[in-house]
Amino acid sequence: MGFTINQRILTENAFFLKEKEGYSGVHKIAEKVLHDIDLVFGVTPKQAEGIEQLASCPVIYGTIDRSPILDRMSEQRLIDLEEIRGKNEVFLFQSIDAPWEGVDKALIIAGSDKRGTIYGLFHLSELLGVSPYVDWNDVKPMHQDEFVLEDGYRYVSKEPSVRYRGFFINDEWPAFGNWCHKNFGGFNAKAYEHVFELLLRLKGNYLWPAMWSARFYDDGPGLLNAELADELGVVIGKSHHEPCLRQGEEYKYLRGKDSIYGDAWNFRTNEEGITRFWADGLKRSGKFENVITVGMRGEADTAIMGKEFTFADNIELLRDVLRTQNRLIKEHVNPDLEKVPRMLALYKEVEPFFYGDETTQGLIGCEELEDVILMLCDDNFGNLRTLPTEEMRSHKGGYGMYYHFDYHGGPISWEWINSSYLPKVWEQMSMAYDFGIRDLWVVNVGDLCTQEFPLAYFLDLAYDFDQWGTNAINKTEEYTRAWIKKQFGGILEEADLEKIYDIINGYTKIAHNRKPEAMNADVYHPVNYQETDKLLAQIEQLMKKADELYKKMSDEAMPGFFSLVYYPAMGNLNLQKMQLLAGKNHYAAKLNSMEANQLSEQIKACMKRDQELVDEYHTMDNGKWYGMGLSEHIGFVRWNEDECKYPILMQVMPTRKNRLIVSLDGTEQRTEGSPWLPNKLYLNDFKQPNITEASFTITSVSDLDASYEITCQVPWLSCSRDKGVLDGKNKAAEKIMVQIDRAKMNNETQANIVVKIPSGTCTIIVDAEQPKVSGLPEKTFIETSGYISIEAEHYVAKQDSTQVQTEKAAGFEVIKGFGKTLSAMKVFPTTSYFTAGQDAPYLEYQLVVSEAGTYEVELYMQPSNPVTKENTIYYGVQANDGQIDLINTIPKGQIVGDHNRYWESGVLNNIRRNSSEVILSAGQNKLRIYAVSPGFVLEKLVIYPVGKKPAESYLGPTETYYVGKK
Amino acid sequence: MGFTINQRILTENAFFLKEKEGYSGVHKIAEKVLHDIDLVFGVTPKQAEGIEQLASCPVIYGTIDRSPILDRMSEQRLIDLEEIRGKNEVFLFQSIDAPWEGVDKALIIAGSDKRGTIYGLFHLSELLGVSPYVDWNDVKPMHQDEFVLEDGYRYVSKEPSVRYRGFFINDEWPAFGNWCHKNFGGFNAKAYEHVFELLLRLKGNYLWPAMWSARFYDDGPGLLNAELADELGVVIGKSHHEPCLRQGEEYKYLRGKDSIYGDAWNFRTNEEGITRFWADGLKRSGKFENVITVGMRGEADTAIMGKEFTFADNIELLRDVLRTQNRLIKEHVNPDLEKVPRMLALYKEVEPFFYGDETTQGLIGCEELEDVILMLCDDNFGNLRTLPTEEMRSHKGGYGMYYHFDYHGGPISWEWINSSYLPKVWEQMSMAYDFGIRDLWVVNVGDLCTQEFPLAYFLDLAYDFDQWGTNAINKTEEYTRAWIKKQFGGILEEADLEKIYDIINGYTKIAHNRKPEAMNADVYHPVNYQETDKLLAQIEQLMKKADELYKKMSDEAMPGFFSLVYYPAMGNLNLQKMQLLAGKNHYAAKLNSMEANQLSEQIKACMKRDQELVDEYHTMDNGKWYGMGLSEHIGFVRWNEDECKYPILMQVMPTRKNRLIVSLDGTEQRTEGSPWLPNKLYLNDFKQPNITEASFTITSVSDLDASYEITCQVPWLSCSRDKGVLDGKNKAAEKIMVQIDRAKMNNETQANIVVKIPSGTCTIIVDAEQPKVSGLPEKTFIETSGYISIEAEHYVAKQDSTQVQTEKAAGFEVIKGFGKTLSAMKVFPTTSYFTAGQDAPYLEYQLVVSEAGTYEVELYMQPSNPVTKENTIYYGVQANDGQIDLINTIPKGQIVGDHNRYWESGVLNNIRRNSSEVILSAGQNKLRIYAVSPGFVLEKLVIYPVGKKPAESYLGPTETYYVGKK
Repeated sequence: MGFTINQRILTENAFFLKEKEGYSGVHKIAEKVLHDIDLVFGVTPKQAEGIEQLASCPVIYGTIDRSPILDRMSEQRLIDLEEIRGKNEVFLFQSIDAPWEGVDKALIIAGSDKRGTIYGLFHLSELLGVSPYVDWNDVKPMHQDEFVLEDGYRYVSKEPSVRYRGFFINDEWPAFGNWCHKNFGGFNAKAYEHVFELLLRLKGNYLWPAMWSARFYDDGPGLLNAELADELGVVIGKSHHEPCLRQGEEYKYLRGKDSIYGDAWNFRTNEEGITRFWADGLKRSGKFENVITVGMRGEADTAIMGKEFTFADNIELLRDVLRTQNRLIKEHVNPDLEKVPRMLALYKEVEPFFYGDETTQGLIGCEELEDVILMLCDDNFGNLRTLPTEEMRSHKGGYGMYYHFDYHGGPISWEWINSSYLPKVWEQMSMAYDFGIRDLWVVNVGDLCTQEFPLAYFLDLAYDFDQWGTNAINKTEEYTRAWIKKQFGGILEEADLEKIYDIINGYTKIAHNRKPEAMNADVYHPVNYQETDKLLAQIEQLMKKADELYKKMSDEAMPGFFSLVYYPAMGNLNLQKMQLLAGKNHYAAKLNSMEANQLSEQIKACMKRDQELVDEYHTMDNGKWYGMGLSEHIGFVRWNEDECKYPILMQVMPTRKNRLIVSLDGTEQRTEGSPWLPNKLYLNDFKQPNITEASFTITSVSDLDASYEITCQVPWLSCSRDKGVLDGKNKAAEKIMVQIDRAKMNNETQANIVVKIPSGTCTIIVDAEQPKVSGLPEKTFIETSGYISIEAEHYVAKQDSTQVQTEKAAGFEVIKGFGKTLSAMKVFPTTSYFTAGQDAPYLEYQLVVSEAGTYEVELYMQPSNPVTKENTIYYGVQANDGQIDLINTIPKGQIVGDHNRYWESGVLNNIRRNSSEVILSAGQNKLRIYAVSPGFVLEKLVIYPVGKKPAESYLGPTETYYVGKK
Repeated sequence: MGFTINQRILTENAFFLKEKEGYSGVHKIAEKVLHDIDLVFGVTPKQAEGIEQLASCPVIYGTIDRSPILDRMSEQRLIDLEEIRGKNEVFLFQSIDAPWEGVDKALIIAGSDKRGTIYGLFHLSELLGVSPYVDWNDVKPMHQDEFVLEDGYRYVSKEPSVRYRGFFINDEWPAFGNWCHKNFGGFNAKAYEHVFELLLRLKGNYLWPAMWSARFYDDGPGLLNAELADELGVVIGKSHHEPCLRQGEEYKYLRGKDSIYGDAWNFRTNEEGITRFWADGLKRSGKFENVITVGMRGEADTAIMGKEFTFADNIELLRDVLRTQNRLIKEHVNPDLEKVPRMLALYKEVEPFFYGDETTQGLIGCEELEDVILMLCDDNFGNLRTLPTEEMRSHKGGYGMYYHFDYHGGPISWEWINSSYLPKVWEQMSMAYDFGIRDLWVVNVGDLCTQEFPLAYFLDLAYDFDQWGTNAINKTEEYTRAWIKKQFGGILEEADLEKIYDIINGYTKIAHNRKPEAMNADVYHPVNYQETDKLLAQIEQLMKKADELYKKMSDEAMPGFFSLVYYPAMGNLNLQKMQLLAGKNHYAAKLNSMEANQLSEQIKACMKRDQELVDEYHTMDNGKWYGMGLSEHIGFVRWNEDECKYPILMQVMPTRKNRLIVSLDGTEQRTEGSPWLPNKLYLNDFKQPNITEASFTITSVSDLDASYEITCQVPWLSCSRDKGVLDGKNKAAEKIMVQIDRAKMNNETQANIVVKIPSGTCTIIVDAEQPKVSGLPEKTFIETSGYISIEAEHYVAKQDSTQVQTEKAAGFEVIKGFGKTLSAMKVFPTTSYFTAGQDAPYLEYQLVVSEAGTYEVELYMQPSNPVTKENTIYYGVQANDGQIDLINTIPKGQIVGDHNRYWESGVLNNIRRNSSEVILSAGQNKLRIYAVSPGFVLEKLVIYPVGKKPAESYLGPTETYYVGKK
């Protein structure tokens, strides 16, 4: 039997050896692991400083050069430390036989450095089934009687893929701030200890602390925050505009007329004060493990110089600043500057200063930046911006990425709840890595709560890129399932775990399609393609599943389930539902439909539910997360919550006549049957051979009894009802299902469904003519109602290409689940450029249109930003053997940034649409899409005759028929 | 003592002499007058056939050539009939002394013809204070003890200005139809007798009976309707598409496979049947007094031939039709065609057939039309279309006009309630007369009810154009007051009569600005220039006056007041109010303002009131007007009532924070005070020296207590409140009045009003700099806030011109009250054309602008149609001594007719706006507007720098400051 843990062993003597030579921080982590063991086995294990007090199966942990016993065992060849020595954050985890008398088996946890040891210790917790969220989310591990490690178990961890991996607590009011103050009395070490623990358990090592109103170096109280971080091995960084270990709030706090730091955040007019401010920051905090932010921006995330200064003035200023800062760092931290991790953020206006322009040399290549990590950024909405060119990748200091799971800024802030979707994080962050960004990854998690899941993914991706990165395409589902199993595997059956998978994947995809704060009644079309009804049905199903699980949860399991799954999901879904209902409500009200009044009540119920969810989150587990969820989150109309509007409840007054409306579901076609107005509806859905069911809805506009009668003469169509009465109160609407039985058609293709209603007669003209498919290849799309809509993965052929610079064939791959509808197509390797018609990989689609002519080919794409300063992402489009048109997906005038309408609509809608024209012949056509630039990610294609755009909608027309479609 | 009526005289013996030789219809009218006398004196006077049974003061009435006694008296020189002999519809009304023994005084009523006598008889009723509405509206005359005609009273009426004067009962369902069926059992003579009586009392002589579902010649029953009309002297016409004394419904009723009339309303394929149908109609009804419609249109107001026929085909067909019809009329009515009044309507598509085009000769000048009245038409919305050119005016048959006080058709039908405004009727119909339309005036009055007032005006204008027509400019007020006095002079004091004046003038002007059926929440701007609030205040005031009078009415007086004043006014006003509140409700809801919820309740109350008014109308006076008011009238979205929508009630959910909005009244400026968003409001009203008060409003968006604090440091501004609390429920908004005391300004011109509210601070920046006016002439407009708005009558100078063809100087005159705001300017004579810069009259305006540059001069004009086939109405515009630009007010592409967006928006908005550019210098400028074409009626001018259009609104910016403005 291998290394064993059970109650007997844990109680017979000390379980952990705690050498006095070891890092105090490591010992503190060991205590947390002992607590984990207590949770699992129900006894509190002890530590001993000498081997003589140890149990028969003890744990020996230590760090190379800080552990005499590990040295000795190494000398005794009991373990081999050479494999980890000198490596970064690596640990050896090994069960050995009787190293000395009285010990049967010992578990050795040896770290290459402090964090290596810590990760090794937490590896034990992990093996025992303890969730990394045991502390933060109160996820209780399952009780075990005995744990046995297989004999000879030996595991050596890999060096992490990314050097600094962490997150940024940001925008801390009202949520994180209230949480700290209520539970801990401030932004102090008691609060941060929980944050540090979570970071380390998730294998991160790097943190930007809160900085809106907080002062990390004062709030500990005093230096306690920084000292604890340093002790536990948490590397502290400051945000992009907080250089020299000083926080922005500190200057606000210290400045003044009589201040030694002066009273201006201005390196030109107050050089002395600012320099002194920085020097004192470095003197105070330089002794801790840091990545020191260099450079300078304006106060509170603003530009540094006024508009009266030139581009060159700004760059010159930054050079002076960098020179001063490096000098101060040498003086106060380490004369060997190379040894001091430093970071310059190329954020907002700093980016152009870095690159310079035709007439002004930027900071790029500047000597002062030689060893500095250049931190690039996404566009605040999860889309990377410029990435290092091949030439730039050799920069000695390496690169970092500042990514967002939360953002406080325009066009619309998103800081209330998790709305990040793993496939997008994968697609973007793996591209970052591929482009050489491997030294620092930091993600803004806002208040942290509800971000636990994507944060784990982000840190795991950074920790082990081999496992989860570029080569692990389409593994986010696997990751999600594994994550769920870790948290809930002990308490739920497989089917329930799968429900959680559906819930998490479901709500994050919905939030990916539209973030909750940016959701409003006008986003989804209330009727076209039934996109609102379909989404509502999906939401209802997810909410039902969540409620079923909620009912199953024990008191003990509830906090973990509620905080990790239920609240993030239900908060998101309920809000989306409310806004979708509001869209339906507004549409119904404009028709005077009595449904509006019922919908209005449903909206109110959602609003109530939203508050109940927040309230429950606040009070759950004795107020453990008090404050979280407090952020405004409904109906943003500005970049921040100010002046946000709740959905308008539109009510109608019943008409004085008993009128009914017949409307064709999925379209805006409708009539009240008046002989004076158009009273025919055209149902063409059955022209698509895979469609066997359609529907129309009868709605009342009065509160008087109103009857309808439906007749259809042909045997191949049947309606779910043939008559009924609506009263506009209890029954305001009736959906009528229409089924087609093609076996009975007998060459008939047209029929009328006649609906008699009080104001007249509605005739639904059904066209069910079937397209000719014989001889057409599978996946040939056939136009049946004026347009073709194609999910990108439904190509008929694809062509890869081998490039000189890559060993692997470059070609399009499906990214499952990515994009707004089915999936997306992207070329790997992600860094390659191609020439269309020469080496470019392509996708080939097959389509049949009834009329020759000029068609629009509208592409739906992930709203990627160009990876270089050139404002282009090209693709090629070619119909049949015609010319290849090179199309730039970036609209003229688009730049990344607030108030640019292209960029804003791209990030809010999470889509970019781009249209170009091709000439198609009547009948069969082939259409090729060529990859040209990196960043091109294709989700959907819609093809229609010029000037005949299909009806508007948020997600675009649902996919139309192709040969073989079921 | 003169001719006297009192109880004694009335009871002593017979009061009226009824000669057996007289017209039976005249005797029937005499009975009605006797009934009037009964109402006044309380006794039923008798008639006698011989002079021996007469009272001491009797009435002798008769018609020339049908009255032996009048002949005798004439021979005896007691009266002189020569003055009236041979004249049309003229009467002599004379008191004579003792014509024979036993008679002290006799009142002679002698008619030149049947209708002359009838009008003479009703003249007596009128003198006795009996309203023409005594029967139709149950307006009771005041009781009198004695009536004395001054001794020697003699009055000879004039010949009516227009030969045929009448109305068209149209669109008879649901109102008129229900009324007839409920009260009389059908569209029969019992019902029509009331209509005929009203027509004759109002001095009309001509009627188009109902024809949607009615058949005048069958419904009597049988010919009773026609026989009664003929007996009473009512000339019957048929509507524009009902030739040869046949109604459209008759053909529908008679046609069929085996019908002798065939089964196609087609003169080409069923010539025999149609000809027979017409011949039988003429045989049956040709004996009555008629104006026979000739020509042919399609069934039910549609075009006659399909689209497959050419323009020439249509004209050729009409020629054949006219030839056939004239032949039939000669055969069956009168071989002397000249003696048969006939009419051809140039309505809809018939108009182009009349004029022809370059390649095809139209019907104009066609021999068959020689003696036919050519009936022209308005555009269905009260704006005349083409009028006879000078050359055409010599047409022997003369001209008619088909005008509308009710219309069932596009863009939006108006048939529920009176919405006609006398100044417009005057402006248009006097122009019709000026252009030679003097033979037939017929007005569509729909169901007749609520049209009683404008109908009286229309018929009076036609009867006595000298008194009320072109030369009686600005007499509609006088007419209205006189009309009110006639109906209510006996029961109300002067102040109350004046209230009725305000009510009638007020509601009709409001309806003139926007017809109730075409009113919706988006017509008036909810905040700009406070146009909604100002109109609401006016409506409230009018409704208050109406309710005050309502409370004063005795049971006896109520029916007349309710049907002539209260219902038409309140129905109109309450609906306008509801839609204005809906506009405010929607605006408030979009801000999440809690006012929305209060407004929503107010809208519901209006909806309830609307129903109550209809109900009261239906039940009043034992259901006398049952059916009237039944028409749908709210929220038309199509040309007819189908699919009409009631106003949406928008409700808001209170926000979770106690937020307040500060908004500057009259503008869209608003803020919640957030430091992150614009939080300054700019109050510039006080730059206009005549403005001493402005206001802002504080509104709550939550239902939590929210307090505000207002401070203003300067002594020259004062606010009506300095603090307060809103709770969003009982108190959702507070209006703060700001007063300026210019005496205290002491050269200060700028000040801030600071409003502290929960989300931050709103600063209202008040700019009160005064313009320099010294040296500027009175009425000089001074731009103070980016634009100048001028009421057309506020010119500084005007220039008339004498033309060769007119004796009178031609020049602009003010038409008081006409137009949407203050008044309008139009050139008289209305038929003249001018050359700008030569003989054109002009208006000169004076303006001061702060910056030199190109300005838009936007003219607001009555939406006149061109009077000729040329699609132009020109005016000239000239700044300073620059060139005169000739501008065509008719937008390119405008034609009169459904689906033409220019025409549609013109008639719905009742305005035409036309803009052109001028160059202005900084400082003083003069601007001249030259008259060029007839039909140019100027209401308002708005001048602003190109591209800086003032905020949108329905009525346009309110007039800005001019020197001398109070």
